Amino acid sequence: MIYLDHAAATPVLPAALKAMTPYFTEQFFNPSAPYLPAKRVREAYQAAKDTIAHTIGAKGADLIITAGATESINLAFTACHHRALVLATEHAAVLAAAAPHHATLIPVTRTGLIDLAAFRKLLTDEIDFVSVSLANNELGTIQPLAEISALVRAARADRLAHGLTTPLYLHSDASQALSLLDLNVARLGVDLLTINAAKCGGPKGVGALYQAHGVPLQALTLGGGQERGLRSGTENVPGVIGFAVATADAKRHLGTHRKLYQTLNARFRQALTRELAALGLPAPLLLGHPKHQLANFCPVSFPGLDAERLIYRLEAQEIYLSTGAACAANKGTKSHVLTAIGLSDSEIAGSLRLSFGAANTLDQAEPAAQALAAAVAAEAARQQCTTPTSAQSATPAASTARQESRHA
Amino acid sequence: MIYLDHAAATPVLPAALKAMTPYFTEQFFNPSAPYLPAKRVREAYQAAKDTIAHTIGAKGADLIITAGATESINLAFTACHHRALVLATEHAAVLAAAAPHHATLIPVTRTGLIDLAAFRKLLTDEIDFVSVSLANNELGTIQPLAEISALVRAARADRLAHGLTTPLYLHSDASQALSLLDLNVARLGVDLLTINAAKCGGPKGVGALYQAHGVPLQALTLGGGQERGLRSGTENVPGVIGFAVATADAKRHLGTHRKLYQTLNARFRQALTRELAALGLPAPLLLGHPKHQLANFCPVSFPGLDAERLIYRLEAQEIYLSTGAACAANKGTKSHVLTAIGLSDSEIAGSLRLSFGAANTLDQAEPAAQALAAAVAAEAARQQCTTPTSAQSATPAASTARQESRHA
Repeated sequence: MIYLDHAAATPVLPAALKAMTPYFTEQFFNPSAPYLPAKRVREAYQAAKDTIAHTIGAKGADLIITAGATESINLAFTACHHRALVLATEHAAVLAAAAPHHATLIPVTRTGLIDLAAFRKLLTDEIDFVSVSLANNELGTIQPLAEISALVRAARADRLAHGLTTPLYLHSDASQALSLLDLNVARLGVDLLTINAAKCGGPKGVGALYQAHGVPLQALTLGGGQERGLRSGTENVPGVIGFAVATADAKRHLGTHRKLYQTLNARFRQALTRELAALGLPAPLLLGHPKHQLANFCPVSFPGLDAERLIYRLEAQEIYLSTGAACAANKGTKSHVLTAIGLSDSEIAGSLRLSFGAANTLDQAEPAAQALAAAVAAEAARQQCTTPTSAQSATPAASTARQESRHA
Repeated sequence: MIYLDHAAATPVLPAALKAMTPYFTEQFFNPSAPYLPAKRVREAYQAAKDTIAHTIGAKGADLIITAGATESINLAFTACHHRALVLATEHAAVLAAAAPHHATLIPVTRTGLIDLAAFRKLLTDEIDFVSVSLANNELGTIQPLAEISALVRAARADRLAHGLTTPLYLHSDASQALSLLDLNVARLGVDLLTINAAKCGGPKGVGALYQAHGVPLQALTLGGGQERGLRSGTENVPGVIGFAVATADAKRHLGTHRKLYQTLNARFRQALTRELAALGLPAPLLLGHPKHQLANFCPVSFPGLDAERLIYRLEAQEIYLSTGAACAANKGTKSHVLTAIGLSDSEIAGSLRLSFGAANTLDQAEPAAQALAAAVAAEAARQQCTTPTSAQSATPAASTARQESRHA
């Protein structure tokens, strides 16, 4: 198996699972119970929160533990009472949570970077919430958060000078970035930061929201008053223990992992272009920003081809990758991210997202590239055969094939 | 260790943990991803939902998986748009979720049973939501859900006959009851049922809400559209797999477990009374309903004593029990459940909740009873010594001692 979809899910690190296990069994106590073993569980839980918080330059008390990034994002948006600005390429969870807040979409450039000039214009006095992901989940494009937060700070100062009292909060979804960038909430200048265990070697069903001092949030679930009343329910102790081990491990290996991904990514891209050329095929369209991109991301497009058919061809060889966000891929809708960066329908239909992870090795670059090139060649040949003899260009034919496979 | 607080938390069953483990490691795929191994994960997830649903006489598609009972309860209350009726002894999560809905509390009798006559009167035409837990989390009292749902059905028929269109939904929190009673949503006559993995040998951080066909719910978290759009976020696959194994196991061993708890409970009560008598002390006040009570519950009160001090004395002998709901115990507030059944402050202050579980053995009844009786004797003696020589009765003295220990 060559797994190239770490942006969708990562296996739980053996060390994380090992640390979690006693909290399922011997240390199963309810952390709110009054006896000593339960108090020790609470201490372990709080120490784990501290560990997670330290990886983003915060304290455990600044974190609200949630069931994952989606819940963190929805909780973050409870600070929004007027109008929101969100990046056009945000994850579905941000777009959905923003929808009730008359959200305006901030445009992005062809590489997926925020259009800072447009953002400055859109940041009017009625905006009280801005949400910009640190790194995009389809392109891996890393946003200039420091520049964005500088603009937010300037807008706040300007409001203060004019006697305006509308607050302005900056939220960032760092789900994809947590294990790849050295994060620090102060340096990023964010008021709220969403992080997630399942994308960095921790278990599914656990996430956190960093809340800067004074940012008013409203609980989505009321009850026993856990997480400072902002998220009631018995604490998911094993999940948080696993999250802590995974984030600490990611932080410790940040440099070596990034180097691995850079080398792997470069070798893969080189091999792919070479293999395609050998088959008389053009190089793929490389998506995202050439420099400001997560080291493990390799989003590419083969315009005119049907990416889903490529995925099935590679699946037969136990090579696993996706067309984009797993939750969107599952619904068969056109990627709003690729639409936002201005790709044509044909370019979108031929798009694949490869994302490397700690489980990948350098020797996987060649076979993966060869298999993908062969799949592209086979698919290009198949489409030429099935293209009607009328003078249709490759693009509408591919588009038709895509429609058929979608409705099959 | 003798653990007597299964109502607060249960260890994860070895079989459940074993079933979960591969879904942390090899089967870690995102169930929404498009390749075969991910589709197999989705199949396993859906099969697990079916297993959980079958234990309550429902289908997997009727369940919305959540992060636990608290979230399920909060989701259930999104069906409430007018006024709610909730039992006075409901869990903090129900009371908190009901608060924004102008909720009226349904009174209970001294044994914790719903006052059906009062309920009938309170069930006016403006009520659109009723929430009654199947079994109380401090007393174990089992409510007559079939009678309650018959009244709800009659009220619906009456509204229909009068041309009223206000809907009326019945929700029940079955968190405590799931592993102890043979549940069937049709027989119970509920529209919504909350269940929880962590109370029945499954992992923390997983629960479900059963939703009868046509009951309108609103998502608390928006995003990728998982769980029919009612609960977005990547599915907690291992958690649901563990939940399924735990519920299936509980269902399979329902009879034998109940018999174990009944015998254990009877032996414990008998031994406790005998030991107390030998020490010249009166029998404890037995709380809850003598018949309609979960077999594993043994809530007792030693009026005039400080239950927290009893807990610490038993803790020293590795016997663990609690004063009531763990989340409330943690806050040091007076139990609203014991207040609602009409206990005096002195009776409340001396209340303990013992709850047996599958990990307990029959030979634990004697040592647990002996230790508790000895603790009661020691505490009674201590209080007599510390009681001021003025003519105060034992009760206010105990109350004072309690206050002190609370503020210590």
